[in-house]
Amino acid sequence: MKRNYKLQISYDGTRFYGWERQPNKEMTIQGKLESVLTKMTNAPDDDPVNVNGSGRTDAGVHARGMVASVVLDTDMTEDEIQEYMNKYLPEDISVNEVRACSERFHARYNALGKTYRYTCWYGTSKPVFDRKYVLVLEEKPDVDKMREAALLLIGTHDFKSFCGNKKMKKSTVRCVDAINIEESGNYIRFYFHGNGFLQNMVRILTGTLLEVGYGNIPVSDIKGILEACDRQKAGPTAPPEGLCLMKVDY
Amino acid sequence: MKRNYKLQISYDGTRFYGWERQPNKEMTIQGKLESVLTKMTNAPDDDPVNVNGSGRTDAGVHARGMVASVVLDTDMTEDEIQEYMNKYLPEDISVNEVRACSERFHARYNALGKTYRYTCWYGTSKPVFDRKYVLVLEEKPDVDKMREAALLLIGTHDFKSFCGNKKMKKSTVRCVDAINIEESGNYIRFYFHGNGFLQNMVRILTGTLLEVGYGNIPVSDIKGILEACDRQKAGPTAPPEGLCLMKVDY
Repeated sequence: MKRNYKLQISYDGTRFYGWERQPNKEMTIQGKLESVLTKMTNAPDDDPVNVNGSGRTDAGVHARGMVASVVLDTDMTEDEIQEYMNKYLPEDISVNEVRACSERFHARYNALGKTYRYTCWYGTSKPVFDRKYVLVLEEKPDVDKMREAALLLIGTHDFKSFCGNKKMKKSTVRCVDAINIEESGNYIRFYFHGNGFLQNMVRILTGTLLEVGYGNIPVSDIKGILEACDRQKAGPTAPPEGLCLMKVDY
Repeated sequence: MKRNYKLQISYDGTRFYGWERQPNKEMTIQGKLESVLTKMTNAPDDDPVNVNGSGRTDAGVHARGMVASVVLDTDMTEDEIQEYMNKYLPEDISVNEVRACSERFHARYNALGKTYRYTCWYGTSKPVFDRKYVLVLEEKPDVDKMREAALLLIGTHDFKSFCGNKKMKKSTVRCVDAINIEESGNYIRFYFHGNGFLQNMVRILTGTLLEVGYGNIPVSDIKGILEACDRQKAGPTAPPEGLCLMKVDY
């Protein structure tokens, strides 16, 4: 029986070329999910299973709460689907939940908001056990300054300066309603919540905030960086390993 | 100037053939530490640096609090030694502390006790982010039964049934003064504290407790297993990835 399903997925992005299926690249999250589900449902070659993610994550970016929707023609129960997927997916992809849902549900079109976390680490030792999930900083940035700058980035703005896609033709206006910077031991974690994020946007926001924290960009420049609508004005794109998609709101 | 140093070290044991230096095996923790320190101090080839660990960990076993002692001929400060080591050691070995200490201090001979943790995980999803640091269980074992059995293992006993070294000629009597089994979410963590542990002992204790938890070994058999002094009577050796040396007491 054909039904629409909502999947909640975690993955360690280290080994993958990102979420999106790509020709000749076997290691993508979407590609792995689709090939397991195509096999599971014996879908014909000319009509393979198509998994719709809530968005794309870049190569090397992780997820704890990616949501995807997929139409499956199967008599299996939700639990059986989850068990099958976890058995045949590689150990760095986990399906945490499978729920039958309205046929109108679409993981991307219906997403109302997303939470991303960017994790940094500093210290005289090394983060041996989560080295693939943090950005190691040479020294501690000024967190108060970063919080001041974050306040100026919150709100509905044209985030073109923070967009990694130079050819972006659609609107680059987004609403970021929260940026929280939490300190815990040797960790500094940036939490971003908004209605949507442009390509590389969270990583460029983080890279810019870190430049503020190191005194390379004054807090007073933030307004001008936003207004410039010029990627060259913002800070560098922070590397992918610190980033994790935490939650998608519907 | 020649001085004795106490090192506190963490490592992700996944890629290593264990702590102990071995001929023709480059990937050992002791070997990595010694080669970095030999280079740092320009020690002569016929008198390379010798690092003494508090004990040996098996291939694939991790440590958060390994302690080692080493005599170094250097004018560098403790902080400089730590910085040099962390710079040249691979990313899966971290030196957390370097302290000059009495020349009489020896990490193995002076160790009074050790804490090991064995981490298990069960559930319908998969532990994507710490998959290399846990044993994934097919189903949840009976924790109360395991706690009952653990009480019978606590104390000073001949642990020959729990020793992986068949040729062990020295005493196999050890004192295990605490075995705590903690549940948190999908995790079950076994904490072992004792004055010393035989080869594979923590892994065989864990493997035996899990058999109790699955009903394959009755709690009432534990006393007999200890008394038998026969490795064949105890449960299997739990795999290395769940094990971590947490702390060494002096």
